Amino acid sequence: VAQRLEKFKTTIFTQMSILGNKHGAINLGQGFPNFDGPEFVKEAAIQAIKDGKNQYARAFGAPELNSAVASRFHQDTGLVVDPEREVTVTCGCTEAIAAAMLGLINPGDEVILFAPFYDSYEATLSMAGAKVKCITLRPPGFDIPLDELKAAVSSETRAILMNTPHNPTGKMFTREELEAIASLCIENDVIVFSDEVYDKLDFEMDHICIASLPGMYERTVTMNSLGKTFSLTGWKIGWAVAPAHLTWGIRQAHSYLTFATSTPMQAAAVAALEAPESYYTELKRDYSEKKEILVKGLKEVGFEVFPSSGTYFVVVDHTPFGFGDDVAFCEYLIKEVGVVAIPTSVFYLNPEDGKNLVRFAFCKDEETLRSAIERMKLKL
Amino acid sequence: VAQRLEKFKTTIFTQMSILGNKHGAINLGQGFPNFDGPEFVKEAAIQAIKDGKNQYARAFGAPELNSAVASRFHQDTGLVVDPEREVTVTCGCTEAIAAAMLGLINPGDEVILFAPFYDSYEATLSMAGAKVKCITLRPPGFDIPLDELKAAVSSETRAILMNTPHNPTGKMFTREELEAIASLCIENDVIVFSDEVYDKLDFEMDHICIASLPGMYERTVTMNSLGKTFSLTGWKIGWAVAPAHLTWGIRQAHSYLTFATSTPMQAAAVAALEAPESYYTELKRDYSEKKEILVKGLKEVGFEVFPSSGTYFVVVDHTPFGFGDDVAFCEYLIKEVGVVAIPTSVFYLNPEDGKNLVRFAFCKDEETLRSAIERMKLKL
Ligand SMILES: CSCCC(=O)C(=O)O
Ligand SMILES: CSCCC(=O)C(=O)O
Repeated sequence: VAQRLEKFKTTIFTQMSILGNKHGAINLGQGFPNFDGPEFVKEAAIQAIKDGKNQYARAFGAPELNSAVASRFHQDTGLVVDPEREVTVTCGCTEAIAAAMLGLINPGDEVILFAPFYDSYEATLSMAGAKVKCITLRPPGFDIPLDELKAAVSSETRAILMNTPHNPTGKMFTREELEAIASLCIENDVIVFSDEVYDKLDFEMDHICIASLPGMYERTVTMNSLGKTFSLTGWKIGWAVAPAHLTWGIRQAHSYLTFATSTPMQAAAVAALEAPESYYTELKRDYSEKKEILVKGLKEVGFEVFPSSGTYFVVVDHTPFGFGDDVAFCEYLIKEVGVVAIPTSVFYLNPEDGKNLVRFAFCKDEETLRSAIERMKLKL
Repeated sequence: VAQRLEKFKTTIFTQMSILGNKHGAINLGQGFPNFDGPEFVKEAAIQAIKDGKNQYARAFGAPELNSAVASRFHQDTGLVVDPEREVTVTCGCTEAIAAAMLGLINPGDEVILFAPFYDSYEATLSMAGAKVKCITLRPPGFDIPLDELKAAVSSETRAILMNTPHNPTGKMFTREELEAIASLCIENDVIVFSDEVYDKLDFEMDHICIASLPGMYERTVTMNSLGKTFSLTGWKIGWAVAPAHLTWGIRQAHSYLTFATSTPMQAAAVAALEAPESYYTELKRDYSEKKEILVKGLKEVGFEVFPSSGTYFVVVDHTPFGFGDDVAFCEYLIKEVGVVAIPTSVFYLNPEDGKNLVRFAFCKDEETLRSAIERMKLKL
């Protein structure tokens, strides 16, 4: 294995899902719904396949999808972007992240990251040769320590890589925090990579896209995807919206990482993005109910549950149960209790910082959530 | 844009397809069929979507697809591979190539390449920081200059990146050439990356997988895909077969480049790989007819046509028409004649080497091939 990837292990999602399957455990680990995506989107994919939309899409996205992404972005942020020069369609948001890092970051460039972080951030920054500085968000609120952030950002900083609503904690960056980030970026000529795949799962407050803050669009790469919002995580349609000078780098990397992504799924993504607002309202209502069930249950089991404002995840402190660390706890949970959760220590540069925390997903039907709670009540 | 990608332009396929569309030209450029893939494969994708196979696949491939790839590889080469540890499913062969380079090549590693080469090779080697040495295959036969190759390979060499049947030339590596490569690799402890996406389009001789030569499997990454063989280039299902120690590096990079590829398309790929031998026989018969039409037509137009043994491409010398170089010729061809071809100079480290050559694709229905020939006869 090349040095750039030496320190990384099999992704924690893969490890936990495989171990969970082996033990017949209920999977509240990896973030995929155990219910299906909407019929109208599936129907659009089927129609596209039947209609023969089965050859290479344009590398940077089927024209209709680039347009649909641009309109959605306009509805969400008020910003007008050029679908032909400022949108790139990728193989899931994961590829958008990789393409942004490999396309825009040079070896030695300093990039600031918030821990805990989605594991691909560190791996793709390592592929790009970035020098990573990490700001740790701490429970219970996982607020950004703005003084630490201010001290960290300098003219040496090339970029900040952020994620709101935030996986794994469910924290949403507040307007005050986003404004602080924005003013540091503008002052120090820093660009922002913002992973906003959970933007439509904003329960306690409205999601704010950092690109919509004054002076920010021109220095921001906003990344999103179909999977979370439309319960179709396996379709792998993602995108990056960024000003043309940043889009150029992303497209260059994307062209040689995957070239293009699935054509019929791109056609279906167009249909999805044309969903009426009621689709999102209902999605959020459904998820609020699921969240309530899980949070209430986890408290009854005896966890300290930290408030989650967005995403379909909630983080808890498992120390009441007396396990050494998060990995030991999660292994016991899978093997002896029959429930999969995700240990968070891999989401920190210093694994010690996450050793008390584990993440549960509530993108599951109620029955599944209730059974998992039952198992934990019985056996923990 | 990051330095690693600075020298690259928008891929030539994208450039030519976009220019071609603008001018209403017949596209014999980018290698995608203008007919549809087989019904039984499309039906399998539709069924998978209906059945709710719409969430994340396992990162390194849906178990059934890993198995289907392993059996196909066994049928093709006689080699028995472990689907769980030696197969990785990717977003097209393009991602397999990127993952192999980023997962297995360190900065400064020497990699040998044959020019002309598919453009992503050079770009992904640049992302990996490889030191590239290039051996040029020259018309009319595009044979490997074995003396040059011997002189180039040393204990400094980490890998050879090869492609047979060869895009753009249609050359197929002969047993003698493959044996020479194999013995150099074994002697110098070199690994091989072999892109074999056109393996089923072997017209004049049987395709030989270099991994099947004695002592080679353990040092070879064999890459392939669904797109060319099943006329579904837009589905983006590819894979790499390699011994476990090399697969590890590929999977690490793949996990963080895309994580996984489209789940319903993976289910359909299983159905495709179970096609009877008659499917391939018929495919080859169809393509032989198309090839004959194109080759005969190009000769009548006045090109010097070089023999193509495999792939759905043929390379010609355009100098009889008196244009300065391949790019100028192709621009004239699109704008004034109404036909898209691919200039080959971007497939060389030294663009001069390709300035007389352009590539035509015959993965088009007969009517399209005949119309393109007519246009060239009229206007060239
Ligand atoms: C790409 S696998 C991880 C899915 C996910 O977003 C999560 O569980 O955090
Ligand atoms: C991925 S676009 C290029 C398609 C192709 O294989 C070719 O035309 O050479």
